[in-house]
Amino acid sequence: MVQFVDVRHMRDWITAEGVEARILGLMQYIEQDFLRWPSFDKTARIASHSPVGVIELMPTSDGDLYGFKYVNGHPSNPASGFQTVTAFGVLSDVSTGYPLLVSEMTLLTALRTAATSVVAARVLARADASVMAIIGAGSQSEFQSLGFKAGMGITRLRVWDTDPAAVDKFVANLAPLGFDIVRATSATDAAAGSDIVTTCTADKAYATIVTDDMVEPGMHLNAIGGDCPGKTELDADILRRAEIFVEFPPQTRIEGEIQQLDADHPVTELWAVLAGRVDGRTSASQVTVFDSVGFAIEDFSALRYVRDSTAGTEFAQDIDLIADPLDPKDLFSQVVRLEARRSH
Amino acid sequence: MVQFVDVRHMRDWITAEGVEARILGLMQYIEQDFLRWPSFDKTARIASHSPVGVIELMPTSDGDLYGFKYVNGHPSNPASGFQTVTAFGVLSDVSTGYPLLVSEMTLLTALRTAATSVVAARVLARADASVMAIIGAGSQSEFQSLGFKAGMGITRLRVWDTDPAAVDKFVANLAPLGFDIVRATSATDAAAGSDIVTTCTADKAYATIVTDDMVEPGMHLNAIGGDCPGKTELDADILRRAEIFVEFPPQTRIEGEIQQLDADHPVTELWAVLAGRVDGRTSASQVTVFDSVGFAIEDFSALRYVRDSTAGTEFAQDIDLIADPLDPKDLFSQVVRLEARRSH
Repeated sequence: MVQFVDVRHMRDWITAEGVEARILGLMQYIEQDFLRWPSFDKTARIASHSPVGVIELMPTSDGDLYGFKYVNGHPSNPASGFQTVTAFGVLSDVSTGYPLLVSEMTLLTALRTAATSVVAARVLARADASVMAIIGAGSQSEFQSLGFKAGMGITRLRVWDTDPAAVDKFVANLAPLGFDIVRATSATDAAAGSDIVTTCTADKAYATIVTDDMVEPGMHLNAIGGDCPGKTELDADILRRAEIFVEFPPQTRIEGEIQQLDADHPVTELWAVLAGRVDGRTSASQVTVFDSVGFAIEDFSALRYVRDSTAGTEFAQDIDLIADPLDPKDLFSQVVRLEARRSH
Repeated sequence: MVQFVDVRHMRDWITAEGVEARILGLMQYIEQDFLRWPSFDKTARIASHSPVGVIELMPTSDGDLYGFKYVNGHPSNPASGFQTVTAFGVLSDVSTGYPLLVSEMTLLTALRTAATSVVAARVLARADASVMAIIGAGSQSEFQSLGFKAGMGITRLRVWDTDPAAVDKFVANLAPLGFDIVRATSATDAAAGSDIVTTCTADKAYATIVTDDMVEPGMHLNAIGGDCPGKTELDADILRRAEIFVEFPPQTRIEGEIQQLDADHPVTELWAVLAGRVDGRTSASQVTVFDSVGFAIEDFSALRYVRDSTAGTEFAQDIDLIADPLDPKDLFSQVVRLEARRSH
């Protein structure tokens, strides 16, 4: 039997402790795994593109556990009532190859993406950062906001979306949770006076959500939405004057904001900053960019956390996913009985 | 909700019609998909190797459906009571990226591997083939035997395995099913007088299960077990004098018997033979080799068959794998309720 966390159980597991506590928990697992980054088997995710979206598999392994996530990205999905991003994942035992955990990851990815952003911002944003712009009020926006509240104490938000209904939803969801929210009149207005600018838009296009004139000295840009070939959010001029931090360079050069730059443009790996091997932010006036695309190790960390904290609890079920004959060489005995009856 | 076929339901689905009927059904789906081979998005599978085995993801898409299989290969597993190969798979809607089907595939892979072998042998073996050697009496051996009985009417088997208990199991499983089985005294003895030689051993090593002197004119070699870098079964001299047929050359050159040959050694793609674009067997004296490693399209075909024939039946369940908020931009509402209560 394989441990299984479905949508209802994931929701119950999250709400049992609350989104903020779960993001803090995820941050611990993600930081643990980033600190041992060189020990992972890393590969750029395997994408299957279609005219309307992408389906990706994101595997990684630390030699003891193997994990992968299935995730789609379909920007036009909401127009027909579907979500832009859905996901599920699997954690396996490398020594036997057997799956240990199957988990929904639509909700979990929303939390782990926020957790990764906060892990990065804690070493890249100014320590006195107190105001965050949220540009794009879709599914990821509230999770980002709660993550930065939990991990950095940020409660002042300036939100902008081209869709006023999305802003209404954002305000309705977050206003009761201790935030001071300003509805900005434009992306420029949202960025004005913000210490951190989080972009989480979903267009599958080269977009310039943030232009160079919006970026002030000392800002940290948390660029979430540009995560696909042909899908970017930042003006290339910003990238040219900022310090750029990434997860896994071979993947980010294909999918991230830096696809707009030369293939050898210098970038810094986030894990190396966390591990104290290289500098993060070095001055209060520096512009820093976390060019986040989402890497398999973050999902691996999230699956480890879910496995550890749901095993043997009411938050996990068992599913019968792996045939388990008494004699491992006798798979056929599992289906033979009726064969004999049939041939007589 | 996602259609889910677990082990018990897969077993029930197989035994409801019987292994032979299911292999024949799989052959139809596999042939359909091989005939439209150029329309698939093809990639060599993504392997994560460890000292004791491999875990692989095998994705493909025809533009309407996307499928992938998770499969492991751990030759030393049976010694600790685990199976060498286990698998599960997913079929998704390319237009939304949403999963449609999750299915166990340990049993299903055993059937689809046999089905693919028979699809190949029907165009590559001599039409008058009546005796088959089975070298390696592990999990795959009975499925191969029933496949060749169902698809080519072959009931005379000559079986050999280094493990006499595996041969006992093979004979016990198949003797009641209308086979005439000879227990060979060696691999050479098994091959002697056989028209088709099926090799399905599991060692993760360069092995020479079939030597050149065992191969007689007109034989068809159905080479199943060599499917991993460093894992082969046939003497390279056999390959040099045989016509070699493969699934997807970029994958087979890494994983198949032909890893022993130069990278430009001529091979013929099986789909092109089935589509009538190139010749299969051209003479009764020719030696043909199907260098089978298992390709993602075969699993895609198998998942299509399972989806079509279990939808809305007692053989499928629903699982709650994909979070489904009423407003697709409002994932957060799924976890917000307790947040508000917590912060008051």
